[in-house]
Amino acid sequence: MVNVAVLGYGTVGSGVVEIINGGQFLKKAGDEINVKAILDIRKFPGDTYENLVTDNYDNILGDDEISIIVETMGGLKPAYDFTKRALLKGKSVVTSNKELVATHGAELLSLAKENNVSYLFEASVGGGIPIIRPLNNCLAANDITSILGILNGTTNYILTQMFKNGVSFENALSDAQAKGYAEQNPAADIEGHDACRKIAILSSLAYGKHINSNEIKTEGITKISSADVNYAEAEGYSIKLIGRSKNLGDGVYACVSPVMLPKGHPLSDVEDVFNAILVNGSATGDVMFYGKGAGKLPTASAVVADVIDIVKHKGYGAPFWEDGGVTVAINPDPVKMYVRVCDNGRGASAVTAIFGEVKMLKSEPGEIVFITDNLPENEFDDCILKLQGILGQDSIINTITVL
Amino acid sequence: MVNVAVLGYGTVGSGVVEIINGGQFLKKAGDEINVKAILDIRKFPGDTYENLVTDNYDNILGDDEISIIVETMGGLKPAYDFTKRALLKGKSVVTSNKELVATHGAELLSLAKENNVSYLFEASVGGGIPIIRPLNNCLAANDITSILGILNGTTNYILTQMFKNGVSFENALSDAQAKGYAEQNPAADIEGHDACRKIAILSSLAYGKHINSNEIKTEGITKISSADVNYAEAEGYSIKLIGRSKNLGDGVYACVSPVMLPKGHPLSDVEDVFNAILVNGSATGDVMFYGKGAGKLPTASAVVADVIDIVKHKGYGAPFWEDGGVTVAINPDPVKMYVRVCDNGRGASAVTAIFGEVKMLKSEPGEIVFITDNLPENEFDDCILKLQGILGQDSIINTITVL
Repeated sequence: MVNVAVLGYGTVGSGVVEIINGGQFLKKAGDEINVKAILDIRKFPGDTYENLVTDNYDNILGDDEISIIVETMGGLKPAYDFTKRALLKGKSVVTSNKELVATHGAELLSLAKENNVSYLFEASVGGGIPIIRPLNNCLAANDITSILGILNGTTNYILTQMFKNGVSFENALSDAQAKGYAEQNPAADIEGHDACRKIAILSSLAYGKHINSNEIKTEGITKISSADVNYAEAEGYSIKLIGRSKNLGDGVYACVSPVMLPKGHPLSDVEDVFNAILVNGSATGDVMFYGKGAGKLPTASAVVADVIDIVKHKGYGAPFWEDGGVTVAINPDPVKMYVRVCDNGRGASAVTAIFGEVKMLKSEPGEIVFITDNLPENEFDDCILKLQGILGQDSIINTITVL
Repeated sequence: MVNVAVLGYGTVGSGVVEIINGGQFLKKAGDEINVKAILDIRKFPGDTYENLVTDNYDNILGDDEISIIVETMGGLKPAYDFTKRALLKGKSVVTSNKELVATHGAELLSLAKENNVSYLFEASVGGGIPIIRPLNNCLAANDITSILGILNGTTNYILTQMFKNGVSFENALSDAQAKGYAEQNPAADIEGHDACRKIAILSSLAYGKHINSNEIKTEGITKISSADVNYAEAEGYSIKLIGRSKNLGDGVYACVSPVMLPKGHPLSDVEDVFNAILVNGSATGDVMFYGKGAGKLPTASAVVADVIDIVKHKGYGAPFWEDGGVTVAINPDPVKMYVRVCDNGRGASAVTAIFGEVKMLKSEPGEIVFITDNLPENEFDDCILKLQGILGQDSIINTITVL
């Protein structure tokens, strides 16, 4: 019998308890698993497992029968401290907490290694989609060269609504909130922070060194308007919030931003709350993982798979990366950019004078919309500055990377 | 230092030697790996590794320094015998041989277990796409309910050519042969046997009991004509060769056949030599794995990932299933069917009299083409017999399952 404590009895935590103590998967673990304690400061009167709930973490740490801690609290405080103390006590920790892994992953993985236990986090990226273990094990005979992913279901739902039903960003967001896909405070999703943490975790794992999520240039979807959607659609593009990174050998380029994807791109038809992650390996080429990136049971099942892994295989082959990854701020590859500007009458000639040959889109009166040729990022920034010099500081309505 | 012997110096085998002795991935194994011997009855004068080639398997078996055997011979003979002897000698075996795993998987997995070694076969399905390990480990907290996959790149290339470039089956096949995607004897691919072996392996692993590939109803793509392609396309369908299975609790329904997929289905836009596998888990819902399903380096990299797994994690968590799976012959779910028949003038009234309300497609003169409502398989078979009674034995040109 292996005893587990679950920290945080929220959506994912209660899903974990339901799956483990519900018992339908115990056969796969080769040893019985039991949730012995649940840590939460709240009370849950009437809940099936109310008698397991405690607000005293020391009791859990001091219970030698509990060998695995499931941390589904989210946030850094007190999860970071709780995780460290568990690892130091020789208990393995399984988490769905992407913020903690993205921030302190290297340190916690080292601590786990030193104490001969595991720190597993399959549920931190892509909910129920297997991605951490495949990256870590199945693609071991590859150098991972790049990662490109739709990593946040909420923003993908909003963008899908804008494209398919022609609704505004604000209405799509309200709809997502009403359906429970978006939090009442949606900033972490729509500002791209959630996707940023996930691409930081995937990149750290794939390239072997900790990538600091604070160093990743991150732009959300709040600037995407119905007009952008219409322009993109007319040209056969979809717009997705993409987290991406590229291994440059001596550093990693990573960023999160809306991207215009052409039809036929493997990620362009990934809709609603689905996530998809495209990994390029030196031997395999592009490999894609697709599924629902969130939700109580998908995420909880990924947590429980990690628990089973520890019970059955003692966590052999747990993921690991070192500290000290270097983040490169400037995109090493030239890219095309979609640009939408206010036209004061001098726009068209200014654009051609500054950018040279561009693809002009049919646009509304008072606007000029175009897609540049491939340009290095700093060259593009210079051109935009020049354009602002002619058309005015506030003339740039939006710019979006085009793949 | 871990020494490996590679059996069969063909496409995949030489890729394995190239990756291992090329050395670029050794850092990930935590221990050096070396190919010490290559078994092949051919000679390879001038090859970098010609001095490693031997035609004497006993020397390899008797070499206690060789702890891992990579079997990339394909076929049952002598691979089956060679694999058994290796496992009995306490050597782990890694294979890309789907025929052998599909036929003798349960026995070889038991033999590996008894001898405390591993029998791994990530490369047997989906080439470089991670699918065996995710099914086995990451989805462990799920009951897998069904699998649906494009499992053969050659037939997918042929069908893509027929749809996108309007070429005939014969021309698409010749093109695939010219490009090296299809063998000179293409039967295993175009008759569906390759896909059948793969769905047998996936189903055995997902549902825990050996599914005999000989018991899986298998139909290839040789009956798909340009006319079928045109009819499907006009209705917004693509046609894919699909291997699928469903866990019925007391048995497994599995089959391989062409299937018409509506636009928007996650598999409908998977083109060219790409494979994609959609797995439905009780907790995760649909999860999809996508990538190139064949090719020297993708497949070899999957083999080497298994070798690394054995070196690094001693094969803990290796896949396993028991003997004795029960295959159910009749589809438990009613399905829609596309039917194309020769019309002798009495066709339309006969179809309506027998099938009731159907969706008639706009068809060429002398033909009637329709899509039925959802029907149980045996009821559909009865209807077809009745239709043949009226329109003649040879009147049925083609029938295709519609999802």
